[in-house]
Amino acid sequence: MYNAKAYSAASATSPLASSVIARRDPTDTDVQIEILFCGICHSDLHTVRDEWHSVMPTVYPCVPGHEIVGRVVKVGAKVTKFKAGDLAGVGCLVDSDGTCPECQAGLEQFCGHATFTYNAPDKHTGKVTYGGYSDSVVVDERFVLSVPTNLNLAGAAPLLCAGITTYSPMRHWGAGPGKKVGVVGLGGLGHMGVKFAHALGAHTVVFTTSPNKVEDALRLGADEVVLSKDASQMQKHLGSFDFILDAVSAQHDINAYLMLLKRDGNITLVGAPEQPLPVGAFPLIMGRRSLSGSPIGGIAETQEMLDFCGKHNITSDVEVIPMQKVNEAYSRLLKQDVKYRFSIDMASLRA
Amino acid sequence: MYNAKAYSAASATSPLASSVIARRDPTDTDVQIEILFCGICHSDLHTVRDEWHSVMPTVYPCVPGHEIVGRVVKVGAKVTKFKAGDLAGVGCLVDSDGTCPECQAGLEQFCGHATFTYNAPDKHTGKVTYGGYSDSVVVDERFVLSVPTNLNLAGAAPLLCAGITTYSPMRHWGAGPGKKVGVVGLGGLGHMGVKFAHALGAHTVVFTTSPNKVEDALRLGADEVVLSKDASQMQKHLGSFDFILDAVSAQHDINAYLMLLKRDGNITLVGAPEQPLPVGAFPLIMGRRSLSGSPIGGIAETQEMLDFCGKHNITSDVEVIPMQKVNEAYSRLLKQDVKYRFSIDMASLRA
Repeated sequence: MYNAKAYSAASATSPLASSVIARRDPTDTDVQIEILFCGICHSDLHTVRDEWHSVMPTVYPCVPGHEIVGRVVKVGAKVTKFKAGDLAGVGCLVDSDGTCPECQAGLEQFCGHATFTYNAPDKHTGKVTYGGYSDSVVVDERFVLSVPTNLNLAGAAPLLCAGITTYSPMRHWGAGPGKKVGVVGLGGLGHMGVKFAHALGAHTVVFTTSPNKVEDALRLGADEVVLSKDASQMQKHLGSFDFILDAVSAQHDINAYLMLLKRDGNITLVGAPEQPLPVGAFPLIMGRRSLSGSPIGGIAETQEMLDFCGKHNITSDVEVIPMQKVNEAYSRLLKQDVKYRFSIDMASLRA
Repeated sequence: MYNAKAYSAASATSPLASSVIARRDPTDTDVQIEILFCGICHSDLHTVRDEWHSVMPTVYPCVPGHEIVGRVVKVGAKVTKFKAGDLAGVGCLVDSDGTCPECQAGLEQFCGHATFTYNAPDKHTGKVTYGGYSDSVVVDERFVLSVPTNLNLAGAAPLLCAGITTYSPMRHWGAGPGKKVGVVGLGGLGHMGVKFAHALGAHTVVFTTSPNKVEDALRLGADEVVLSKDASQMQKHLGSFDFILDAVSAQHDINAYLMLLKRDGNITLVGAPEQPLPVGAFPLIMGRRSLSGSPIGGIAETQEMLDFCGKHNITSDVEVIPMQKVNEAYSRLLKQDVKYRFSIDMASLRA
């Protein structure tokens, strides 16, 4: 074991504070990564504050962070995909059983024994996994991604969660040339959705409640922007969408969006409103429409997404902050006061 | 025009009563059918009582009925598919534009200009279409189905709506050998779903709230029956279904069923609860599950379904009633006091 610097929460009501954690020495199949940037995901905040207690109680101290980009400093004897000096990424998963049908299909996100990057039982230490709010991390090479060297690294970090979470359903539901794709909600997830829909060649429409986001939506790649509170604007798009990515985590009228789908069209939720959404049967029945959800993506697809980002020079729009400002960033996150993702510069932790 | 006997409602609060209606003489492409049996669908009752006023106000007098089986008595000069003496069926649609992409794809149920069998503008008469609670009907041959001669005709009538409504989503979502398929709610629609899932070769599980329906579910073809109020029985099936047909029109906990789906599994609603169903984001996101709806089916698929029924000798379980007992049947329908569909014997109307 070796000591790593980290920011951790001591309880659900404690701010994140500087601490030292023990990381395992890399095993034969491990990659040790010097973390350069870590994005802030809303899941981090939920976990730190134990807001998902009923599903996955938080174990303290908690070190969140699953949007990790860094540089490989050491590899185990059997590691073949990485060498010291390589750029590397780590997302929401650091392990899975590798043998179940889901893993065999490259869909580790659905493995019943997947290990999350933080707040999950750690088979190596017998404790809990610690995430990327740290200067270093050790991960089995199967769960380490290659990060294209042309990308801005601060902006690349959020690709590991916000990126794959939006890319995966776009691919699954066939966003591409000749398709009309909507993105609801222009936040950390939504703005990535817009970039992907556009880069995949779909006619991209952004739905927003904020007139002051129109310009930004167009800059991010939208072909059209619809103010969702304006019924006449919504009306114009009835029955016209192949796919809508719904990245809103607040309550909203999902039926209004279902009505915008073509026959066999799909809306996929990637935001997770706390309360159930009231869904009408008729909007589903008329048009054989479907409502789905989607969680992150598999490791192979995450690599595909990163390679796609390298090719199209796609990164997240980020506000880079030092580790010391993370608590302030959490407060701002709750007010949606960020365009569009915070990325922590881990140089601040080493300083 | 010629006179036909029918049962019609004069207003939303009137009982159905004997009347005479005018039918058009068959045009070159029309088929004139002597109606032998007509099933009673809950839509008939909704329409007669103008309960769908906001979507499709009822025009009175109203002659409902869209589960029609009869014998061809006359065909137009250009009709090629039918001749006098043939058995024929008519379902929910009697016309569509034939030129839109939906029609071209054989999905007339999604045509924006489809004409419903009753309570729809009738381009021939300038009035409203009259349905199958009648001794005769005239329909364009494109919307007339061939009914296999081996089927019990009273039981075949409900195939034209309840049958295709359940067969179509089963086929669309791939119910068949090696698949585990659930059917929720054992009524007019659900009991057809069980028969189809079984005949298609799927492992068929019926969910019911009524212990006294278990035996019947097994008789209809279920491999297993789950009492949905028993949490431990539900628990055993978590994450195991490829497809669930939800034929319940009352409020129910859809999230409990979503949790029973495998990764990429689908629940399709064919019942239409009046109030929106609260749908949790997590059951959808975990497992990339989807919730859909499905309305009837296209004409080609309806013929496929009838041929499938002929091959497997599938009909609806019906209680045959004379036309004169239709109002009583409506009362019983509201109490779900029917196993599993009423079929009106039109001989009673001719007597």
